[in-house]
Amino acid sequence: MATLLDPHARGRVILVGAGPGDPGLLTLRAVEALKSADVVVHDGLVDPRVLDHAPAHAQRISVAKQRDHHTLPQDAINALIIAHVKAGSIVVRLKGGDPFVFGRGGEEVEAVRAAGLRVDVVPGVSAALGCAAEAMLPLTHREWSSAVSFVAGQCAGLGEQSWAGLAGHGRTLVIYMGVACAQLIADKLVAEGVAPDMPVAVLERGTLEGSRAMRTLLADLGDMVRRERVTSPAIIVVGEVVLLSDADNRLATLAAQASALA
Amino acid sequence: MATLLDPHARGRVILVGAGPGDPGLLTLRAVEALKSADVVVHDGLVDPRVLDHAPAHAQRISVAKQRDHHTLPQDAINALIIAHVKAGSIVVRLKGGDPFVFGRGGEEVEAVRAAGLRVDVVPGVSAALGCAAEAMLPLTHREWSSAVSFVAGQCAGLGEQSWAGLAGHGRTLVIYMGVACAQLIADKLVAEGVAPDMPVAVLERGTLEGSRAMRTLLADLGDMVRRERVTSPAIIVVGEVVLLSDADNRLATLAAQASALA
Repeated sequence: MATLLDPHARGRVILVGAGPGDPGLLTLRAVEALKSADVVVHDGLVDPRVLDHAPAHAQRISVAKQRDHHTLPQDAINALIIAHVKAGSIVVRLKGGDPFVFGRGGEEVEAVRAAGLRVDVVPGVSAALGCAAEAMLPLTHREWSSAVSFVAGQCAGLGEQSWAGLAGHGRTLVIYMGVACAQLIADKLVAEGVAPDMPVAVLERGTLEGSRAMRTLLADLGDMVRRERVTSPAIIVVGEVVLLSDADNRLATLAAQASALA
Repeated sequence: MATLLDPHARGRVILVGAGPGDPGLLTLRAVEALKSADVVVHDGLVDPRVLDHAPAHAQRISVAKQRDHHTLPQDAINALIIAHVKAGSIVVRLKGGDPFVFGRGGEEVEAVRAAGLRVDVVPGVSAALGCAAEAMLPLTHREWSSAVSFVAGQCAGLGEQSWAGLAGHGRTLVIYMGVACAQLIADKLVAEGVAPDMPVAVLERGTLEGSRAMRTLLADLGDMVRRERVTSPAIIVVGEVVLLSDADNRLATLAAQASALA
């Protein structure tokens, strides 16, 4: 990857993973890419300290959802990137986490290449890894889990996805973007054979200011998300490894409160 | 994570993910941790440019396999770390990839905490993400894969692991540390129901000097690894997303050679 950031190569795209949120979790290569940028096209919720790595003259373009506006459709993002590259710019396309794990990076690479243009990819720390490190939650563990799987839990299309076999004894399942549908996710997993008393953690705003790590049992997942008013961004981890983490046991807290009231 | 690297906190461990190998894929936080280190305890094959981030006076200790020596057992690594921390040092435990994905980070955290000492974890770019970015291989893709799973493919214990359901249509399976047992892995996956013509990629020395990205079909995986003399470190990716990558189609190359000879 030594030639990745050849400063003489104009008119190109660098697809960059910005990591889970904490600006300290950018890679050195991501910083180098940002420093070379003429244009930065970024998703929402990027810390200003991340964008500050780009030169002052670089144009910053958010393609995120804003009040009264929808997220720019993928076609429009692709067209925007391509137009800037054709004008000779170095375009950094900055995405949360890693571009190739639920980042639609594959589609952006295809679009840029279909236009006959050069694109490179700088990997990033995916959200699951950042959140797990903060919560001291080992995603794999010699005694507890020999496989870890990542899926996306947005409400749209949730019913069509099969997660059969991804969660259960000896396996860790990480669900990205799933808190809005936490109850449906719990129901789905139980229907697919996961024990209702399987430990689950919800890692809210992992690596960011105000992060919370909470745990309960699968049967209580939907209720806990409601009680605790969990909001995005958050990931859900399902598996025995949750018990090794520092996540607060909110079911125990609830039981203690109930017993105090009795 | 703002207080993670409080320079006044002495006698502690920082478990740091060094990423997939390329020194540019260290995070800013990992660099910061290395700069604070009195002692760096690292695995083998670490690029000298990574260790150069530690101060000149910091002690560097390799716990890797060396000629005529075995890798230091996990108990001895734990004891070594704890002894240095008790002497008041800031010990950086540097591990390839991410500490919580097949890094046995969970066990080291447990050992340090059992000794009553403080430990923090800095996540890293896991090998799969680094190798995939280099090979332009999207691990998930709206049309081709909605789930990605990571497993370890060392020969020891391979037969006892169930990977049922982790690979197949619409799913990506990444196998770490599996090239020494590639034939057994292919046999295992076919026995578990994966189609013999499922595309597979082998990403050898991903992000490092001399990296190779090769692809074939599952039925040829063992043979390709032998023909191409693939060595560790390497990861194996199983799934339709392999077709989207820049990995060389070695089966097509072989067919062309055979036809030229006919």
